[in-house]
Amino acid sequence: MNPADIASFFADPASLEREDYVLLDYVLETTAAPELAAAHLCSEQSTAQWRRIGYEEDYRPLHAAKVIALEVIDQLPAPSVPLDPPVTAPVTVLRVQIAHPLRNFGPRLPNLISAVLGEGAFFAPEVPLVKLLDIEFPESFLAAFQGPQFGVQGLREQLQVYDRPIFFGVVKPNIGLAPQPFAELAYQAWCGGLDIAKDDEMLADPEWSPLAERAACMGAARQRAEQHCQCPKGYLANITDEVERLVELHDLAVAQGATAVMVNALPVGLSAIRMLRRQARVPLVAHFPFIAACSRIPHYGVHTKVLTKLQRLAGYDVIIMPGFGPRMMTPEREVLENITACLEPMGAIKPSLPVPGGSDSAATLERVYRSIGHVDFGFVPGRGVFGHPMGPAGGAASLQQAWAAIAGQIPINDHAFHHPELAAALQTFG
Amino acid sequence: MNPADIASFFADPASLEREDYVLLDYVLETTAAPELAAAHLCSEQSTAQWRRIGYEEDYRPLHAAKVIALEVIDQLPAPSVPLDPPVTAPVTVLRVQIAHPLRNFGPRLPNLISAVLGEGAFFAPEVPLVKLLDIEFPESFLAAFQGPQFGVQGLREQLQVYDRPIFFGVVKPNIGLAPQPFAELAYQAWCGGLDIAKDDEMLADPEWSPLAERAACMGAARQRAEQHCQCPKGYLANITDEVERLVELHDLAVAQGATAVMVNALPVGLSAIRMLRRQARVPLVAHFPFIAACSRIPHYGVHTKVLTKLQRLAGYDVIIMPGFGPRMMTPEREVLENITACLEPMGAIKPSLPVPGGSDSAATLERVYRSIGHVDFGFVPGRGVFGHPMGPAGGAASLQQAWAAIAGQIPINDHAFHHPELAAALQTFG
Repeated sequence: MNPADIASFFADPASLEREDYVLLDYVLETTAAPELAAAHLCSEQSTAQWRRIGYEEDYRPLHAAKVIALEVIDQLPAPSVPLDPPVTAPVTVLRVQIAHPLRNFGPRLPNLISAVLGEGAFFAPEVPLVKLLDIEFPESFLAAFQGPQFGVQGLREQLQVYDRPIFFGVVKPNIGLAPQPFAELAYQAWCGGLDIAKDDEMLADPEWSPLAERAACMGAARQRAEQHCQCPKGYLANITDEVERLVELHDLAVAQGATAVMVNALPVGLSAIRMLRRQARVPLVAHFPFIAACSRIPHYGVHTKVLTKLQRLAGYDVIIMPGFGPRMMTPEREVLENITACLEPMGAIKPSLPVPGGSDSAATLERVYRSIGHVDFGFVPGRGVFGHPMGPAGGAASLQQAWAAIAGQIPINDHAFHHPELAAALQTFG
Repeated sequence: MNPADIASFFADPASLEREDYVLLDYVLETTAAPELAAAHLCSEQSTAQWRRIGYEEDYRPLHAAKVIALEVIDQLPAPSVPLDPPVTAPVTVLRVQIAHPLRNFGPRLPNLISAVLGEGAFFAPEVPLVKLLDIEFPESFLAAFQGPQFGVQGLREQLQVYDRPIFFGVVKPNIGLAPQPFAELAYQAWCGGLDIAKDDEMLADPEWSPLAERAACMGAARQRAEQHCQCPKGYLANITDEVERLVELHDLAVAQGATAVMVNALPVGLSAIRMLRRQARVPLVAHFPFIAACSRIPHYGVHTKVLTKLQRLAGYDVIIMPGFGPRMMTPEREVLENITACLEPMGAIKPSLPVPGGSDSAATLERVYRSIGHVDFGFVPGRGVFGHPMGPAGGAASLQQAWAAIAGQIPINDHAFHHPELAAALQTFG
């Protein structure tokens, strides 16, 4: 590209009609000059060839993605990640903000992803490393999406839980257990104080635990638990399956007593969730398989925040995400950004309940709550409830006890002195 | 895990019923002892808690993923990729082969992905970097999939092209051009010798080029070109859109004269392709947006070969993939592995036509052909045809001339001496 071509991919943001553009925030490492690299990134994701041969015309004014901000962050002797084929030249690390014309793809998730995370982003010349850090949509784009049907408030009303985090528990053993004993474990946990018993994200509709049978057992157990506890209880059924079965499995699970359904977002595809959303009668819950594959590397892939926003847009009422603690290999800042992405204003799109998960138990609840700073989150132990030495009822009770200590401003170890389930949780998982 | 627990995640492959397992090949970098890291990887992707509290039972024999081979490849002073939170301890680089029981998820793409590329793979303790390098399916798994409907042979019969690569061309300008002039460019290219004119992967159904109108113009132009050339011509319509529109757009495009449809694989989701496959009446073509986001880093994410196999399984007749040359930032070995993954025996699943793409033209055809070593591939220039200085007819002619030189064992520069389109292509793109 010559200097005039490069300039045609830059714009003063004040000159652009905000409603016509999706705003993108990339970090990249390039062996080229900063302006050229940024122009390539725009050109490749929009009008790579902007005129016909033999015609005087230019499709860039209307259709080109345009750089609206460019900042050199660092210079490195080589890319921060070893690549194959190797790149051994020095690189400049850039932060680039781009306005991409909405008219190029419209309010469609697959076409949005194809434009901003496609060949254009990852094969721009001399840009071996690039990560989409954030995305912002104009109101006109948001208005085309339904978003969550229930949202945080709807979920709270369903459970009649308003003033504390919502306690989920992943029934364990997650794989191999038949429906009847599976439901018995859930029953114990519900009676101990769990709000929502959930299927593991890998437990779907296998022969040894068909969803129809498991949902029937869980539905019956849930009703018994509600009678015992005199309060609503939830069963979150994992209906992750081929796209053409989603509606059928949703209907089946709900008919048998599921109060919410989980669909693993990326393995199924966000667009299929948008489809399911139109027919869903219970809250939709996202789980995060495959997301780490494209998001963990600091300067490569896509930031989890972008995928959280897309999940919310697709219609998930609840978004389970990698949470706090070393096991989840996610910076605390990033977890908090994802929680914010669930809850912050987003046009008329309702908030999704964030559920930061990973090796949680009564021993981690206070740390998680203090990090988040408010109660609008879900807490999702697995072994912390179902591997508790006093069984699932004890595990669930330990969560309620931990919360009572936090809410009552009682040091948790003091509270444990009179609450054996909490004491056992702290000893086993702390 | 104690030594007995670790051992329970290892198995002699001879002791396993091959038909019951999906075989996985991972490379990983771990701060733990090799056997422990490999056992964690298995445990987390299958039975993380293998018994109920208070019961004498063990779900591992039937349901645990099992290490069947383990090799220490290297020791590094720190992970090969800088991470956040940082990992500064020395790591061991391991190659681990795992047999994962098919009974855990069955022949379903989303559940397979959730198991082998999910929380288990990317959040195994002390394994900050891991990449799924390869996957092999048992016959019983393959038998549940339709795979490509037409395959390489069907596509060749459709076009009556048997003894050379199939020439695709991405109509350019890719974004902004109205349907009528778009079809005029395609007409010129067809008449010059192009087999299939295709929509860019970012051009779908926007207001300024509605698919219905574009397909109608392209269908009419294609028939004119067929009459002019007296041979079949193809229009590949990009129907990438929300999942619930795929069948409708397929039907619409085909009714108007598309001879194949393209759906961007990962942005839409592979499971939706499997759904479309059941109703498709023309070849399905994959494009690769988003795949690089999870596949470029040598020791992290998923190898493109795995995604190529899954695309073939989902039913794609043609798989467009990052090809040769520095712009595509893909090792030649990896391109060839992907081509092999399209064509190698895979139960009763037909081969898919591999289309390695990226900045191709008559100037690169010979190199691509020599690298592949046979004619069963598609060649997909964009600017190489539509940015040719003599226009699209000249660009398409230059491909045919380049092939004539290769087939006739004539040095391509000699052949260009008498073929001005080829000469112009070599001068412009060479």
